[in-house]
Amino acid sequence: MTENGWQHHERVLTMETMNPNIKQVEYAGIKKPFTEVIKANIGDCQAMGQKPITFFRQVLALCSYPDLLEDGKFPEDAKNRARRILQACGGESLGAYSASQGIEMIRQDVARYIERRDGGIACDPDNIYLSTGASDAIVTMLKLLVSGEGRTRTGVMISIPQYPLYSAALAELGAVQINYFLDEDNCWGLNITELRRALQEAKKHCSPRALCIINPGNPTGQVQSRQCIEDVIRFAAEENLFLMSDEVYQDNVYADGCKFHSFKKVLFEMGPEFSQKVELASFHSTSKCYMGECGFRGGYMEVLNLDPEVKVQLTKLVSVRLCPPVPGQALLDVVVNPPQPDEPSYNTFIKERSDTLAALAEKAGMTQEILNQVPGIKCNPVQGAMYTFPQIHLPPKAIMEAKEKGQSPDMFYCMKLLEETGICLVPGSGFGQREGTYHFRMTILPPKDKLKIVLAKIKEFHQHFIEQFF
Amino acid sequence: MTENGWQHHERVLTMETMNPNIKQVEYAGIKKPFTEVIKANIGDCQAMGQKPITFFRQVLALCSYPDLLEDGKFPEDAKNRARRILQACGGESLGAYSASQGIEMIRQDVARYIERRDGGIACDPDNIYLSTGASDAIVTMLKLLVSGEGRTRTGVMISIPQYPLYSAALAELGAVQINYFLDEDNCWGLNITELRRALQEAKKHCSPRALCIINPGNPTGQVQSRQCIEDVIRFAAEENLFLMSDEVYQDNVYADGCKFHSFKKVLFEMGPEFSQKVELASFHSTSKCYMGECGFRGGYMEVLNLDPEVKVQLTKLVSVRLCPPVPGQALLDVVVNPPQPDEPSYNTFIKERSDTLAALAEKAGMTQEILNQVPGIKCNPVQGAMYTFPQIHLPPKAIMEAKEKGQSPDMFYCMKLLEETGICLVPGSGFGQREGTYHFRMTILPPKDKLKIVLAKIKEFHQHFIEQFF
Repeated sequence: MTENGWQHHERVLTMETMNPNIKQVEYAGIKKPFTEVIKANIGDCQAMGQKPITFFRQVLALCSYPDLLEDGKFPEDAKNRARRILQACGGESLGAYSASQGIEMIRQDVARYIERRDGGIACDPDNIYLSTGASDAIVTMLKLLVSGEGRTRTGVMISIPQYPLYSAALAELGAVQINYFLDEDNCWGLNITELRRALQEAKKHCSPRALCIINPGNPTGQVQSRQCIEDVIRFAAEENLFLMSDEVYQDNVYADGCKFHSFKKVLFEMGPEFSQKVELASFHSTSKCYMGECGFRGGYMEVLNLDPEVKVQLTKLVSVRLCPPVPGQALLDVVVNPPQPDEPSYNTFIKERSDTLAALAEKAGMTQEILNQVPGIKCNPVQGAMYTFPQIHLPPKAIMEAKEKGQSPDMFYCMKLLEETGICLVPGSGFGQREGTYHFRMTILPPKDKLKIVLAKIKEFHQHFIEQFF
Repeated sequence: MTENGWQHHERVLTMETMNPNIKQVEYAGIKKPFTEVIKANIGDCQAMGQKPITFFRQVLALCSYPDLLEDGKFPEDAKNRARRILQACGGESLGAYSASQGIEMIRQDVARYIERRDGGIACDPDNIYLSTGASDAIVTMLKLLVSGEGRTRTGVMISIPQYPLYSAALAELGAVQINYFLDEDNCWGLNITELRRALQEAKKHCSPRALCIINPGNPTGQVQSRQCIEDVIRFAAEENLFLMSDEVYQDNVYADGCKFHSFKKVLFEMGPEFSQKVELASFHSTSKCYMGECGFRGGYMEVLNLDPEVKVQLTKLVSVRLCPPVPGQALLDVVVNPPQPDEPSYNTFIKERSDTLAALAEKAGMTQEILNQVPGIKCNPVQGAMYTFPQIHLPPKAIMEAKEKGQSPDMFYCMKLLEETGICLVPGSGFGQREGTYHFRMTILPPKDKLKIVLAKIKEFHQHFIEQFF
């Protein structure tokens, strides 16, 4: 081998030899490079022109370069926040590692934020884990949950349509994905009968152990009612399921009569027989809401009723990657501890926040209104989050042509749209949809004027597409 | 079930039901909280008082809060770098997602940095993947490499002593860890005979597919000679092993006659029969060297000779987590593209960099000198990196008492040191060591005056420990 081995050299890592789970990972998207593309495909707020909150960025600049603390131009409240964050950092620097669970002071601030949000229900900072965006924490929890082989293999229930992080992580971990379908005819509502159906079927071939909820919904934009959340919790309790609630759009609620209710709050309002038993992990992030700071990869998860020994394992597991990015932790701290009424930055902060949320609400309304004017496009109300997921009626001829090309029909549609208009959407098949239905996901993030043009172009394209394949 | 299920409620996630691989994960450390602890346990430069490079932090502040670009106080070169980075960001903001592989301009800057470092050997920016610290990229590559079951299960060779990220990641992925021992009697050198022994033995029970190298070494502080690297590459070529070279300490070389050689450079110098065939991933980070910016979680990996189809899979895999933190990417950009001789910040930059590296070199020398004065402590030269890993001779009585307590003898020693002196070290057992030998890892990072005290206290403690257990 030593002398002749070289002639026999073969590549070590090939499609045949690589981790087979990774091959199963799918991630929704269109990757075709374009010179002038209007990206309405991903929830990337600031890339679409949304302005960061001034106060947050001032604090980050002060933390990055503390010499600026001597600068008279910065407001006192920004300086106070920066000093407080730096004092909680090793060596008073963003450049030091933090504790793997996150900086303790910031976890305390997160706990107080959750208590205010949930009307005073207690939150223990020891249950808070800061993370690298919400994705990181979601994958970490799934990782802990996966075990068994064959019929005892962990099954995890996810909504269809879903955010593809879930299916990708489950494929990578070799867990069983259990689909439950959201009810498109009822504003993408979650239906307990459907949950039960999916669970019973799954029990035949795996061991269902967790139920994932995204509220407000991505890609579907629905906001769950308090009653629905209570029903889901009752179902999880009865069926011994670990609940994972992805609440990264908690400030993005636009529709009249809709309100965000956290799973934690509803769980506690249901009384101790639930709040002391149901295992819940809920997730939040700095990437969405009114801040839209995706690039900083800040986030946290709160765990409830976790087995204390498992919690030790969780803490060990996160310590392997050392710590979440400290600038993201600093940003999270100002998100959960923003300017107060008696502070100099308060008015500007409130104005920036409400302007951003009002613009999103207006664009949510405009999107559903204009898309619903197009014959062959049917769009549920965008009650929350940042997306619409309309159903598109495709002519049989188009479906046939797509299949000849080896593409899913909605991918065929989105590629044609991209080629003809430069508008980039994501085909519904990347999120999952009922057999024989077709959708796309579109963000409501382009600036109002641009969004109007996008919607008009989609309208025109769709009519032309229908004619072409009639 | 629906009506009576509740009484039968059991916790979903317990030690019995959780992912068994996670239980196998071990991560070296002492977690005991202390009021006044001198942390010489982890390579956390800025937590130990090392100052960040002024220019880097100016650029980060400018990128975080671009209004500062109008501020006359900042040097022009810092402003130019910040403008250039922002122009490469979506929406000209650190708050936008980047491409999952990292911002293209920054990957180009990394490629040029590698070319300069390696004397002009070409580097393709498409082979660069930016990452969340080096750990992230290392785990990603290991993930791709793991497959098979039983005797076909992927085995990965790691040095003993090792950096515990490797053993933790392999345990989590369920891969087989193949230990090769570094030669303590020869400055922790890497010995090809030992590599061969470890490989032959491993082939009996798994499928060895990758070889991991840390150079300069953590926790052992050795710097590999060019000849040794060439031998390792030849071995990997002969044995069809994927090479992973962890080069995060590439600027941390202190000993006379030692020089950092990248695996990439040596590979190319060995000619096309190697450079066009051997699969190599090498890793770098913003956390070590003279910058020590651990908290920003910046880093990159360069892949060579990766199967093009596998590269597509790699790109897909990293896209699931969206993107590495953008502030860390911005920091990496200035690290690989620092002030030039004709720029205003050049002199300050050079002075700060060389002061930091000179201080580290002085502390490396001081550490080995003082520790070697202690009877019963034997310390190899700290040629590079940031650690010493001395062997400690423990009296049989101490070993017995440790075993009665259910502790490893070096853990027993380190706990006693912590209790008596407040100095926190990591027991050698967390990194691996030859059976019957005991070590600790200590960083050279405390400020010089404090380090002197630490070393004096360890000396005194050790003598007292020996007397106590004689």
